Amino acid sequence: MNKYFERIERLRALMIGRGWDAVIVGGSDPHQSEYPASRWKQVEWLTGFTGEAGDVVITADHAGLWTDSRYFIQAVEQLEGTGVELHKTRVPQEVPIPEWLFATLGPNAVVAVDSLCQSAGDFEALAGRFDAVGVPDMLSVLWEGRPGIPQTPVFRVQSGESSEDKLAWLRIETAEAGADAALITSLDEVAWLLNVRASDIEYNPLVISYLLVTPDAAKWFVLKEEIEDPDTEAVFASLREEGVEVLPYQQIDLALDSLDCTVAVDPSSLNASLAQMVGGHALSWTSPVQLRKAMKNAYEQDCMRQVHVDDGVAMEKFLYWLEKSLDAGRTVTEWDAAVKLGQMRAAIEDYCGDSFETISAYGPGAALPHYITPHSDAPVLEPRGLYLVDSGGQYSRGTTDITRTIPLGPCSEEEIQHYTLVLKGHIALAMAKFPAGTPGCRLDVLAREPLWKAGLNFGHGTGHGVGFFLGVHEGPQDIRQNLNATPLYEGMITSDEPGLYVEGSHGVRHENLLLCVPAEETPFGEFLAFEPLTLCHFDTSIIDWTLLTEDEAFWLRAYNWSVYNRLSPLLEPEVAEWLKAKVSE
Amino acid sequence: MNKYFERIERLRALMIGRGWDAVIVGGSDPHQSEYPASRWKQVEWLTGFTGEAGDVVITADHAGLWTDSRYFIQAVEQLEGTGVELHKTRVPQEVPIPEWLFATLGPNAVVAVDSLCQSAGDFEALAGRFDAVGVPDMLSVLWEGRPGIPQTPVFRVQSGESSEDKLAWLRIETAEAGADAALITSLDEVAWLLNVRASDIEYNPLVISYLLVTPDAAKWFVLKEEIEDPDTEAVFASLREEGVEVLPYQQIDLALDSLDCTVAVDPSSLNASLAQMVGGHALSWTSPVQLRKAMKNAYEQDCMRQVHVDDGVAMEKFLYWLEKSLDAGRTVTEWDAAVKLGQMRAAIEDYCGDSFETISAYGPGAALPHYITPHSDAPVLEPRGLYLVDSGGQYSRGTTDITRTIPLGPCSEEEIQHYTLVLKGHIALAMAKFPAGTPGCRLDVLAREPLWKAGLNFGHGTGHGVGFFLGVHEGPQDIRQNLNATPLYEGMITSDEPGLYVEGSHGVRHENLLLCVPAEETPFGEFLAFEPLTLCHFDTSIIDWTLLTEDEAFWLRAYNWSVYNRLSPLLEPEVAEWLKAKVSE
Repeated sequence: MNKYFERIERLRALMIGRGWDAVIVGGSDPHQSEYPASRWKQVEWLTGFTGEAGDVVITADHAGLWTDSRYFIQAVEQLEGTGVELHKTRVPQEVPIPEWLFATLGPNAVVAVDSLCQSAGDFEALAGRFDAVGVPDMLSVLWEGRPGIPQTPVFRVQSGESSEDKLAWLRIETAEAGADAALITSLDEVAWLLNVRASDIEYNPLVISYLLVTPDAAKWFVLKEEIEDPDTEAVFASLREEGVEVLPYQQIDLALDSLDCTVAVDPSSLNASLAQMVGGHALSWTSPVQLRKAMKNAYEQDCMRQVHVDDGVAMEKFLYWLEKSLDAGRTVTEWDAAVKLGQMRAAIEDYCGDSFETISAYGPGAALPHYITPHSDAPVLEPRGLYLVDSGGQYSRGTTDITRTIPLGPCSEEEIQHYTLVLKGHIALAMAKFPAGTPGCRLDVLAREPLWKAGLNFGHGTGHGVGFFLGVHEGPQDIRQNLNATPLYEGMITSDEPGLYVEGSHGVRHENLLLCVPAEETPFGEFLAFEPLTLCHFDTSIIDWTLLTEDEAFWLRAYNWSVYNRLSPLLEPEVAEWLKAKVSE
Repeated sequence: MNKYFERIERLRALMIGRGWDAVIVGGSDPHQSEYPASRWKQVEWLTGFTGEAGDVVITADHAGLWTDSRYFIQAVEQLEGTGVELHKTRVPQEVPIPEWLFATLGPNAVVAVDSLCQSAGDFEALAGRFDAVGVPDMLSVLWEGRPGIPQTPVFRVQSGESSEDKLAWLRIETAEAGADAALITSLDEVAWLLNVRASDIEYNPLVISYLLVTPDAAKWFVLKEEIEDPDTEAVFASLREEGVEVLPYQQIDLALDSLDCTVAVDPSSLNASLAQMVGGHALSWTSPVQLRKAMKNAYEQDCMRQVHVDDGVAMEKFLYWLEKSLDAGRTVTEWDAAVKLGQMRAAIEDYCGDSFETISAYGPGAALPHYITPHSDAPVLEPRGLYLVDSGGQYSRGTTDITRTIPLGPCSEEEIQHYTLVLKGHIALAMAKFPAGTPGCRLDVLAREPLWKAGLNFGHGTGHGVGFFLGVHEGPQDIRQNLNATPLYEGMITSDEPGLYVEGSHGVRHENLLLCVPAEETPFGEFLAFEPLTLCHFDTSIIDWTLLTEDEAFWLRAYNWSVYNRLSPLLEPEVAEWLKAKVSE
C-alpha cells in the first residue's frame, strides 16, 4: 500500500476521534517562512508532493491538493497512488479551499489546522466561516521520526549598524505606533535586528527564534540546547552584554501569556497559536523592519558591490570551463554543470552556501521557470541551442542571484529572437530613471513591452527584493504585474529578470541584481536610477542587433566592458583573454 | 464692504441661530458631477473662488478654502478682501479639513453640510468624527437670486443599443448583485441608459435627473415643467411607450421613502440626503453602468471614427488660418484663436457645443495645464515660441478632445527638446501592445520614461476615459500614476496626453484619443493595442529627430500621412496642399 495513502488513513482515524470534519495542512512553518525546514514539510510527508506551494485538505471521503500551474505536471506524477486529487489554483474555474469546504461540508463543519503553521490572518478568516480548531503540531502524533526544530551554530555578522541601534530605532517605531512592545516573528527580521545568522533553513542563513522588544528589555527566544557550541555560547554572551536576554524558544508562550501591555504584531508572520496568546493585547501593524531592512545602508551596499566581484569571477570561470569542456567534446550534464558552479563559488572566502538550489537547465528543461535539475540521469548539454543557469551564493558580504542564458552552439531563429528581446527588456529596465516615490509595478512594463510587441510574455514577476546575507527573496518592494504600491527607495536591491518560455523547446532568462541609487535632482524633483551589482558578461554571439536601439546596444557593450575591466585583474590570463574576446564581439 | 465677506457674515449669523459650529461648502451638485451647473457653484457664490476644485470651511472666527497647487495663485488673487484664508492640499504639510476641524473644534463640534451636494460616503465619514448635520440646499435661504435647477430641452440619441436592452441588462446585473432595484444617480449613467441628452450642464450634454429601475418598472425623475418644449414632450412620450415612467424630479424623495425592497446605490454619486431616505434598504455597489458605458459598441466606435474626420478637418482649417494670419502680420490673440476654432467646429452638422472650455495659451500661459484664456486683453500670439491649444467638441456622433502644440516661429533649444520628448512619450504609449487585462497605470511609464531620462516630468495624468457624446472625462479606466486596477478593455477610449510645463516660459502637450482594439492572439494570450481616433497632424518642423527611435519616427510619419490621406478629400485645395507640405517635412 502506498505509504502516503496509509498516512492519510491514519490522519482520518485521528479526525474521527477528535470530531474533525476536515483538516487543512499547509506548507509553511511557525514563522510563515517562504522556505520551511524539513520539520515543517508537512504536505510532503502527508502526500509526497514536493512543490514549493501547495495546501492539502483531508475529509472523511476526499483528499485534495491545491496548487498552481507551475506544479500541475509534478503534482499528477507525485500524487499517483496516494488517493489525493489535484485542485488547480490561479485558473479561471478555481474553487479555493474555503469555498470548496463550504460547498462540501457547509458552515457548521469542524475544520482543524496546525495553529503553529497557520498565519493569524488566515486562521481568523477560516474561523469566520467554519468551526475552526487550531492544534499546535497537529501531525506530530502521527509522524514517527519527525525531524526536530533545526539547531545549527549561531554567529554574528557585520551590517554597518549595531543591534543596539537597531533595537533603539524599533522601540521608537513601536511607541509611535501606539504599542508598548513589539513581537518580531519573521525570521529574517529577527536576524537583521540582532545581526545574527545560522543555517537553520537550507539556503537561508536564519535562526529559528522569536524576538520580543519592550522599552527596557529585549528577549530572544531561541532553541540551541542540543548543539553545545562554544561559538554560539559566545554569541549569546555578547548579546547578553548588549542587554538582550536569551531564553529557550518554547518560553515565548509563557512570556506572551504573562504580558500585560499592548504588543505590536505583524499578522503576515504571526502564527495563530501565538495570536491566541497575545489575544486582546495585540496591535496589528506591518512591521517597519521590513522596509528598513530592504533599504541597504552604505556598508551593506559596499559589501554587496565587493561580493559581486567575487561572485562574477566564479561565474566567468564557470562559463569558461563550460565552453572549453564542450569544445573538447567532454560529456557535461546539467547536474555536472551545477556542481562545478557550486565549486567555483565555494572557493570564495566568505561563501556560506548557495542562496537557492541552482537551476541548471538545457533546452526544454529551461522552458520550466522552476525546473529542478535531477541529481541522476540529468540531461546532457549538447553543442547547440540554449542553456540556462540561475544560481546564487550566500556570503557574509551579501546575497547574490544571477541568471545567464548561454548559446552552446547554433540556435534557431526563434531562439535568437527570444534571446534578444528578453535582453532588450532587461536592458530597458536596467536603464530606467524615475522620480523618487515610484513603485516597481509602474516600471515592470519596461521589461515586458519588447516582448508584448512580438506577442510574447512571461508568467512570473520581473523583479524581487534581495536580502543582505538573508533571504534571496524579500519584500516589501518588487517589480511585477501586481499593483504593489511600495516605492523603490535608495538602497533597495531588486532583481531584473525577464524571461520567455516555450514548452518543449527552450527557455530564456537574463537576470542581474540592481541597486537603487540617486540619479539627479532637477526642478522637476528627485530622480533615482539603477546600478547593476551583478558582474558577468551577457553573451552577444547570437544577438540580433537590429532589435536593439542605439542606447540599448551602447548599454550592453558598456556593461560587458565594465565586467571585463572589473574582473580581469582577478582572472587567470587565459580566462581574462577569453572574456576579452567575449566582450569584444 | 467686500460682498463675499458680507455673505460669509450672513452665513455666520445663520450658524449661530442653528447652533452650528462649522459649515463645510463643497463644489459639487446633488449627483456628484465633476462640473456642476451654476446653481451649485456655491463656493464661488460664497467666496468668489472659481477654481474647479475647492472646499470652504466657515467657523465663528475662521474662513478657509482648501484647494490644490493648480489654483494657489488664482485663490490668493480671488480671495483678497474676503477674509478667506488659503489652505493648501496635496502638499506634504497638508492638514485635511476633518483633521483641521478636529484640532480646532474638537470631536463634539456640530458641523453642517449641504446634504444634497455631499456624497453619502463623505457624509458618513464626517458623521463618524463629529456631530454632522445634513441640510438640503443649506445656502438657499441666504442666496438671493440663486439660479434654478437647469431645464433645457431633452432629445434622444442613437447609440447602437436601445434603452430597453440597456435596462434589461441592468435588471440582470441588479438581480445578480442581490438587489431588487437600482437607483442610478450619476447623470452620465442616466443619459447612457435612456439614450437621452440635454444641455443642463455647460459642455456636458446631460439631463439633471435620477433613474430608479425595478424588475417591472423604470421611473425617471426629471425637471422640465418650465420649458414647455414639444420635442421634450415627444421624448417623454417615446419613453413612456418603452415602459419608462416620467415623474417630477422632486418626487424621488417620495419614491425612495415608500420603497420597500433592497436598492443598489453607488455611494460615489449618491448624495447624503437620498442616502438617508434609502436608509437600511441600500446595497452599496460600484454601478456596473460605468464599465459598460466605457466599452463602446461597434456603432459608437464607428461614429467616433467618423466624427474625428470632421473634427480633424476643423482643426486643420484652424491651423491653416492661424499660420496664414500670422504670416500676413495680423494680430491674433489667444481669445481670437479660441473663437476661430469654435467657429470651425460649429460648422459641423451635428455639433452641439464644445466638450470643455478651450485652452488657447501662448508662451508662459501654456505653462499652466489648466490655463483659462481671458475674454479681454488676451495675450497676442507672437511669431516665435510655442502655442498650445487644447479643445474638443460634443457631437451626436461622439465627443472629441485634442491638444496640439504649435511652433509659431523660431524656438529655443529647450523648447525643441521638450516638444520632441513629450511627442516621443505620446508615441511610445500610442504604439503600445499589451496583454488583455492590463490596467492603464501599468502603461503610464511608457509616456513618461523619455521625460524622466532627461530629469523632466509632468504633474497630471497621461490619459482619461472619454464618453460617447457624454462627459469628456469618464471612468472607470485611466492611464496615470495612481494604481487604478481597472483593465483597459476593447472599445474603451482614453486620451494620450503627456505634457511638460516650465513656469514663466512655455508649455507642451500632445494629445490624441486612442481606441483600445484587439491586436492578436498568440500562444501567450490575447493582446490589445491602440487605434488613434484623433486626426490632425503633429508639426514636425522643430522635431529633434535624433531623440526618436526608428520605430517612433516611422510611426510619426505614418500617422501624419494617414491624417493627410483621410482629410485631404474634405479640405479646400490650398489647405490640402498646405497639409501635404506639413506631413512631407
